[in-house]
Amino acid sequence: MNPHPFETVALRDDPCALVIIDQTLLPLETKYLTLTTADEIREAIKSLRVRGAPAIGIAAAIGLYVRMYHALHKKKPENFAEFERIFTETKNYLSSSRPTAVNLNWALEKMSGVFYQNRNEPADKILSALRDTAVRIKEEDARVCRSIGEYGAELLKPGMGILTHCNAGALATSMYGTALAPVYVCKERGVPLRVFADETRPLLQGARLTAYELYAAGVDVTLICDNMASSVMQKGWIDAVFVGCDRVAANGDAANKIGTSGVAVLAAAYGIPFYVCAPFSTIDPETPDGGGIVIEERDSSEVTDKWYANPVAPRGVKVYNPAFDVTPAKYISAFVTERGILYPPYDFRGYTFRE
Amino acid sequence: MNPHPFETVALRDDPCALVIIDQTLLPLETKYLTLTTADEIREAIKSLRVRGAPAIGIAAAIGLYVRMYHALHKKKPENFAEFERIFTETKNYLSSSRPTAVNLNWALEKMSGVFYQNRNEPADKILSALRDTAVRIKEEDARVCRSIGEYGAELLKPGMGILTHCNAGALATSMYGTALAPVYVCKERGVPLRVFADETRPLLQGARLTAYELYAAGVDVTLICDNMASSVMQKGWIDAVFVGCDRVAANGDAANKIGTSGVAVLAAAYGIPFYVCAPFSTIDPETPDGGGIVIEERDSSEVTDKWYANPVAPRGVKVYNPAFDVTPAKYISAFVTERGILYPPYDFRGYTFRE
Repeated sequence: MNPHPFETVALRDDPCALVIIDQTLLPLETKYLTLTTADEIREAIKSLRVRGAPAIGIAAAIGLYVRMYHALHKKKPENFAEFERIFTETKNYLSSSRPTAVNLNWALEKMSGVFYQNRNEPADKILSALRDTAVRIKEEDARVCRSIGEYGAELLKPGMGILTHCNAGALATSMYGTALAPVYVCKERGVPLRVFADETRPLLQGARLTAYELYAAGVDVTLICDNMASSVMQKGWIDAVFVGCDRVAANGDAANKIGTSGVAVLAAAYGIPFYVCAPFSTIDPETPDGGGIVIEERDSSEVTDKWYANPVAPRGVKVYNPAFDVTPAKYISAFVTERGILYPPYDFRGYTFRE
Repeated sequence: MNPHPFETVALRDDPCALVIIDQTLLPLETKYLTLTTADEIREAIKSLRVRGAPAIGIAAAIGLYVRMYHALHKKKPENFAEFERIFTETKNYLSSSRPTAVNLNWALEKMSGVFYQNRNEPADKILSALRDTAVRIKEEDARVCRSIGEYGAELLKPGMGILTHCNAGALATSMYGTALAPVYVCKERGVPLRVFADETRPLLQGARLTAYELYAAGVDVTLICDNMASSVMQKGWIDAVFVGCDRVAANGDAANKIGTSGVAVLAAAYGIPFYVCAPFSTIDPETPDGGGIVIEERDSSEVTDKWYANPVAPRGVKVYNPAFDVTPAKYISAFVTERGILYPPYDFRGYTFRE
């Protein structure tokens, strides 16, 4: 069951197209884009019309299939070599839209593997295999998120207050999200919760996306500035924190959106459990600890200019703008994964990081 | 020595006027306003062209004198009763500009006391006494801030990293500020520091005012979003936190701009000293603890609309927007006051809260 009145990323078959909600227009406007050409699909990923690592991977896989569908139906390739040339060109073209996105290349490589496995089949069979794979990538993501939601829901009781940071919700994935999946499962089961969403400066994913999708799904959500988290915790309004993550090191240190580590420290100080919702694909047992996770620094204009009618800081002032931070494992109460809830001490050996 | 290329609030004698820097135009434009009428002076306070409790008090006192100067010189009052009527009207009119500002009424009442003490003197003597009082209020504020700066500077060593929140600087006072006074004293003495300024959502006093005044004074300042404080502390870049405060309870709990308590919790977790710079006028021994301090909630549009080219949250979503929070005494390493540095356990009995 989709708890949302929207779908983040979808395949439409007739006529064949990738359909996405344009996240750059949220929360003001809910507009869907119907994309069929490689140019359109690449632009949508590059311009963050679709964002969130899992959602990007799904969009790329569906997009690659859609492109090949039209290649086959509009002007049939003369032979496999020509079909292969179009496939490779499109795959590389989409891959270059956001070069550092792990899920993007993972999904495209998965599509590529299926393409070559079926190289001796007729073109329509290859196409059918590509379609099945793209649909499976999306379904598998929904299944993983649903599972995280069900395990996470075990931690929640009616009336609880939940704090979340950034957007690890339906808009970042195929459907339930990771950090928000337990909230949606509770909503489905009629378990009332009160969610506080950090606005998440500088890109405001909490205000623009998390507040949007929870509000649209009928969840009781209150937006706060990031610096109000301490205040709502002090008031006793927060019973648990749920956040997503980008990468988990072998010792349990977890990288996530900037500000996550601060929320974790506050939660510990106020005696509130802090849960990281993590698909196993984000666990990286090859990285011993958080010190090995490289943190991207982004442009100062995101802090001083973006969104604003006028710049809000003096021209030329230095700005430090890290996109992520690392939450030390000692502040994490547990990881909520699709295979269950993992409590410390963690042993992630043998799990494969998807890269 | 004024460490700034600007003056927040000043009396100009020839022609007689209140001169302020228009803080609503900062940081884009540095523009001074020359104010002589009661309407102009009241509007400047009401519209936050001058803000910060001490600066408002000083502006009101100087403004009241300026108004009486012009009353006497443009059309000489016929008798004391007429002079008194103009004084009372102006005082009440200015007082209504920001009804909850403690320093505003404190300064106006101080002027009123002097006015009546001199009621049997000639009008020009009364005027002279009012001028002396307004100037003394400003000088006394500068002296208090300077003293806080000198005590605070004892806590600092060359090369240290300082974090501050909101604006408790020159733009909120006559000259040095409270939290920033130690930084300016160090600057004067050639002690290099590196200051990190929280932008301080939702009103962005850190970005617009603190970054502006430190940058203008040649201090090494880096602007960060509020949620990056944990990250810079974790990196070991912060050796001490300095913040101002609005009210200190008898047990040492301190109310200050929203987000201050979160910074204090982080500082404690990372083992960084957290100093509250507090003139004795903010110590309120009549309030036993922070629970007795009423926290103002402000309009949701400050979070969702203000500053922005377009709203950044869905229409109708709930917003919690407290203007202040209370930092529990246990997270405060010491209070830096104009009479010295006070370490716990605190005993504020006998000190008078200025209200």
